[in-house]
Amino acid sequence: MNSPIVNFLSKYIELTNEEINILANQNFIQSFKKGTILLSEGKIAIECYFILKGCVSSYYLIEGNVKVTGFYTEQQPITPVSYTTKKPSKYYLECLEDCIISIGTSESNAELLRKVPRLASLGATMFEDQLANERMKYDDFIKLSPEERYQNLQKTRPDLLNRIPQYLIASYLGIKPESLSRIRKRLNK
Amino acid sequence: MNSPIVNFLSKYIELTNEEINILANQNFIQSFKKGTILLSEGKIAIECYFILKGCVSSYYLIEGNVKVTGFYTEQQPITPVSYTTKKPSKYYLECLEDCIISIGTSESNAELLRKVPRLASLGATMFEDQLANERMKYDDFIKLSPEERYQNLQKTRPDLLNRIPQYLIASYLGIKPESLSRIRKRLNK
Repeated sequence: MNSPIVNFLSKYIELTNEEINILANQNFIQSFKKGTILLSEGKIAIECYFILKGCVSSYYLIEGNVKVTGFYTEQQPITPVSYTTKKPSKYYLECLEDCIISIGTSESNAELLRKVPRLASLGATMFEDQLANERMKYDDFIKLSPEERYQNLQKTRPDLLNRIPQYLIASYLGIKPESLSRIRKRLNK
Repeated sequence: MNSPIVNFLSKYIELTNEEINILANQNFIQSFKKGTILLSEGKIAIECYFILKGCVSSYYLIEGNVKVTGFYTEQQPITPVSYTTKKPSKYYLECLEDCIISIGTSESNAELLRKVPRLASLGATMFEDQLANERMKYDDFIKLSPEERYQNLQKTRPDLLNRIPQYLIASYLGIKPESLSRIRKRLNK
């Protein structure tokens, strides 16, 4: 049976059996308890992540208040901005559930590329996809009303609404929890 | 003398003379008059861009109103979401000034990769950088007040404030032109 990472990569290219074996042995998979902080504000990220199970949030702490900017779930990669820029992170990454995560570092990624050079063009395609997603997320945020943002989330990521506390959903949508309750009541009528 | 594209790529890897020659001959450079629409809502983007001179904006038309989401200037690549997803674009790209732009298509990019395979890993790095930028832009938008967003723009992209009409800057910041005037007056005191 294929690992989730092999399944994910197979969306982009057909992997040979040898490549699948290399990938299956390469992964550095780790379990984390709910509440684990993977990255803190002020730290330089030396790891990037691929979520096998669970949910991770990214958020800022602004004057003691949590400001959520993203939720990452199964089959999603996380490349912290700080991992790319090599500057201290401005935000946190936290496990909202017990998680199983595959971890990459610049060393392990470089080693993987040496063994499977074809992954270089795959990397470009994956980052291009993530870039398009991030741009749509930004555009949606600035052109939609809070109610439309909620409906958009219902449509594109319905699983999040059941597994994530409402106050974090509200923070992600840029509204107060009371406003989210009102929106939900209005839409359920 | 090196072309702007070679200079841009040299930030990422040291190019050989042969690679520089291939790149210099590969580029498909075109001039566009101010006001040219490079991409329209509803069209599928078959080109990606690298700006050599000028300024391009991305915007949505919502009930007749322009909602600006980005400004791209010299040395910046533009990969339209529609180019990646192969679905109709939801937004416009328009030249705000007379522009000189290098244009890539999936065919020309594939040909370039055949000639200079090393560019594959470079592509990944470039998209990773763009992804980090886009994420910072999103995060800034949702965690900063309009005044802080303006100050952020002053700090990070001061050139934009002089070359772009104020009503487009206001749209980009998510505020009304009157509010932008007030913010500017307050900060100039």
